[in-house]
Amino acid sequence: MSKGLTSRSDDYSQWYNELVTKADLAEHSSVRGCMVIKPYGYSIWEKMQAVLDQKFKETGHSNAYFPLFIPKSFFSKEASHVDGFATECAVVTHYRLKNDGNGNIIVDEEAKLEEELIVRPTSETIIWNTYKGWIQSYRDLPLLINQWANVVRWEMRTRLFLRTTEFLWQEGHTAHATSEEAIAETEQMLNVYADFAENWMAMPVVKGKKTANERFAGALDTMCIEALMQDGKALQAGTSHFLGQNFAKAFDVKFTSKEGKLEHVWATSWGVSTRLMGALIMAHSDDQGLVLPPKLAPIQVVIIPIYKGDEELAKISAEVEKITSALKAKGISVKYDDRDTQRPGFKFAEYELKGVPVRLAMGGRDLENNTIEVARRDTRTKETLSRDKIADTIEKLLKEIQTNIYQKAHTFREEMTTKVDSYDEFKKVLEEKGGFISAHWDGTSETEAKIKEETKATIRCIPLNNPQEEGVCMVTGKPSKERVIFALAY
Amino acid sequence: MSKGLTSRSDDYSQWYNELVTKADLAEHSSVRGCMVIKPYGYSIWEKMQAVLDQKFKETGHSNAYFPLFIPKSFFSKEASHVDGFATECAVVTHYRLKNDGNGNIIVDEEAKLEEELIVRPTSETIIWNTYKGWIQSYRDLPLLINQWANVVRWEMRTRLFLRTTEFLWQEGHTAHATSEEAIAETEQMLNVYADFAENWMAMPVVKGKKTANERFAGALDTMCIEALMQDGKALQAGTSHFLGQNFAKAFDVKFTSKEGKLEHVWATSWGVSTRLMGALIMAHSDDQGLVLPPKLAPIQVVIIPIYKGDEELAKISAEVEKITSALKAKGISVKYDDRDTQRPGFKFAEYELKGVPVRLAMGGRDLENNTIEVARRDTRTKETLSRDKIADTIEKLLKEIQTNIYQKAHTFREEMTTKVDSYDEFKKVLEEKGGFISAHWDGTSETEAKIKEETKATIRCIPLNNPQEEGVCMVTGKPSKERVIFALAY
Repeated sequence: MSKGLTSRSDDYSQWYNELVTKADLAEHSSVRGCMVIKPYGYSIWEKMQAVLDQKFKETGHSNAYFPLFIPKSFFSKEASHVDGFATECAVVTHYRLKNDGNGNIIVDEEAKLEEELIVRPTSETIIWNTYKGWIQSYRDLPLLINQWANVVRWEMRTRLFLRTTEFLWQEGHTAHATSEEAIAETEQMLNVYADFAENWMAMPVVKGKKTANERFAGALDTMCIEALMQDGKALQAGTSHFLGQNFAKAFDVKFTSKEGKLEHVWATSWGVSTRLMGALIMAHSDDQGLVLPPKLAPIQVVIIPIYKGDEELAKISAEVEKITSALKAKGISVKYDDRDTQRPGFKFAEYELKGVPVRLAMGGRDLENNTIEVARRDTRTKETLSRDKIADTIEKLLKEIQTNIYQKAHTFREEMTTKVDSYDEFKKVLEEKGGFISAHWDGTSETEAKIKEETKATIRCIPLNNPQEEGVCMVTGKPSKERVIFALAY
Repeated sequence: MSKGLTSRSDDYSQWYNELVTKADLAEHSSVRGCMVIKPYGYSIWEKMQAVLDQKFKETGHSNAYFPLFIPKSFFSKEASHVDGFATECAVVTHYRLKNDGNGNIIVDEEAKLEEELIVRPTSETIIWNTYKGWIQSYRDLPLLINQWANVVRWEMRTRLFLRTTEFLWQEGHTAHATSEEAIAETEQMLNVYADFAENWMAMPVVKGKKTANERFAGALDTMCIEALMQDGKALQAGTSHFLGQNFAKAFDVKFTSKEGKLEHVWATSWGVSTRLMGALIMAHSDDQGLVLPPKLAPIQVVIIPIYKGDEELAKISAEVEKITSALKAKGISVKYDDRDTQRPGFKFAEYELKGVPVRLAMGGRDLENNTIEVARRDTRTKETLSRDKIADTIEKLLKEIQTNIYQKAHTFREEMTTKVDSYDEFKKVLEEKGGFISAHWDGTSETEAKIKEETKATIRCIPLNNPQEEGVCMVTGKPSKERVIFALAY
């Protein structure tokens, strides 16, 4: 085991980088800005995918797959969309390499594409170009499709999971007959994301709308879930966009309504990405390593034998076998680590680092006493318990841990949400405390931009079901009808 | 319902293209050579993925994810590898677009990459460059990793699923301490593929080795499974490569052995792709549409009510509800299609086209008689059966269909495998009958190339456990110790 992590209080950013690498979640690749997702990290992502995929299917969506490449001309069809993505596109210009005759491999200039291809940063354009062929009548609607894919957005400053040039995500793209249906879909998927964040990731989120400045390029409305990280910065964990008829118009997608009229289709798109891995890590982990909510932990329970000699190990292993069977019968994933190449202390630290929710240890005295040591990763407490009905005990404990991790994050967020009524106070809280700041704003992009320029804080969202409250903008003094949430953000 | 398919005997190729499109499996996209996998096609691919993924995990492999892009210099490090892929690479040269001031979006020449990036056609190079950091000691071995990903190989002539510029696949990349272990892994994964092909896809395959000419670029040995399509052409359905120490040497990946010596690591790689979808379609389908083996059918049973008036429909639906519950309890996927917008005949044709293995139809007389009409997709036969224990009946029937589809394909392959002993006979069989041709060959690349040049037939494989038989090469008359399998191939 390498030496411990940098502590969060010493250097939060360094702590995060070390944790991601040391817990075998991901690492930087030799390709600028691209990451390698390591097996342990990927197994968490697979659990996230499985849950989300099931939720998408339960809400009537099907998966499909669209091309990686987007012709430049498609990409340019929706004006604000191309403005939003043009400066961060990987562009394919050639389709062949050749040997230059001196043993060097070079690009074959004779194999230049007539039209450049963009590696998808998001797929609205290629998908709406396809939907044109799929939608003729109201009978073809709604069209409810999701895609699991890799996307590329050229980033100059990258951080593992949080901001990488290539990342993995899902993108839902739906088509509807009416504006109302599309808006309902946008809200439904935001709720799916919020449910996933809170009940699987154990991460409380605020549901809200983005301001015009922060909207997705091409959307009429962007809804989001915003989470608070332990360093007091916000992280946008998922977005759901109401696209109006923008893409239908750009790609000429019309349908014949029940009344026989030809109308443009209404659209939504929504996505979450491997960024959720960054959120999961930062929301719960501590100076000893990862803290995983049991529902997303690839290993929920690890069992470590503490023994002298092969005979004692054999006895312990026989008892452990009963426990693992009982746990597996309950659908609990369990690993028995009886490697003889590492000492128990090393193993304890390793599974702490990797965030395994429950650690069981059994030694000679436990054998005699029908007991076992049960350690919780979230509270780092342990107690010796009877092995009678131990599987029931563990099952209850895992639920308790899931709840506790959520509660802890929720309490933290409540403590770190501050109402302010003046710009001076705003700046003071931002600098000294951080977190979510709830303040009045005059609703203009100019004021929003000024605040961002002066403080780096952005409006994370206008919360849904926001209490209406008369007030004045903390910057301009103009009237305001509701508070919005500001924060520094990832 | 659009008019029927072109028949296989009229134009096999046209039949295939129409079937893929009309059964909603896939379609050509507007991006040259890239396909859109439609929801129904993708749901079959998802079933394939789920089965394969489980088999990979059962054999000790973990999933991970490596970058889409490969720096040109990595790509060039293994000489035969770059030779094999250089002429079909999509190359990223720029990372930004800009507005030219006249409203046109153009590539920003100031954002030219110092080193071009290749869109992965396969990932050996980027992965072995990564493994260098992961492998120091024999304790780090074996390293057993798989990746599900998209890859790009620039193709001039494309066919949906069979040959597309972008396709989806999995690629396993393993590292071992000894040559023997790596060879055993290569064989194990070939067996996993063969098991999947035969027991899930119901498609008999010949396991064998490729000749030097047909080997993967960078491999010491390529093993493959070869299947026979209904038009008598062969299709390579999966490959498993023993890479020796080629990539370990190219990327300097060494480990300290138990004996304390520094040695290069031994490697394998293995993959199957969305090409399997093409194989599945061509192996079993008929002039009425797709024929799916029950184990991979997204819908295993469809139920269609035949009724006069709402009252009768309500009675039928109540009975159907009992059947669907009983089927679902057995893990059988079932769809009840009570749409009132389409007639039963339309629905029958639609589910035939989509290859649903069992179709149940219930009408007024069935209500009275406690019966139901059961139609098999594979044989296109139907009978009226009692509804007593109908779920048991259907469960047995699905197994029978799975077996029958396999048997039919197996019988076809046996009939279409011909032993020949002269080159004239070879050419005659190839032209008049097609299929697998078992013949003696002198073992040289020259003769193999001559046969390919003159007949387009290639050696599909040297079968494993091939009976040793003295003979003479049908072309050169030189001595041969075993027959190999020739065919025209996809």
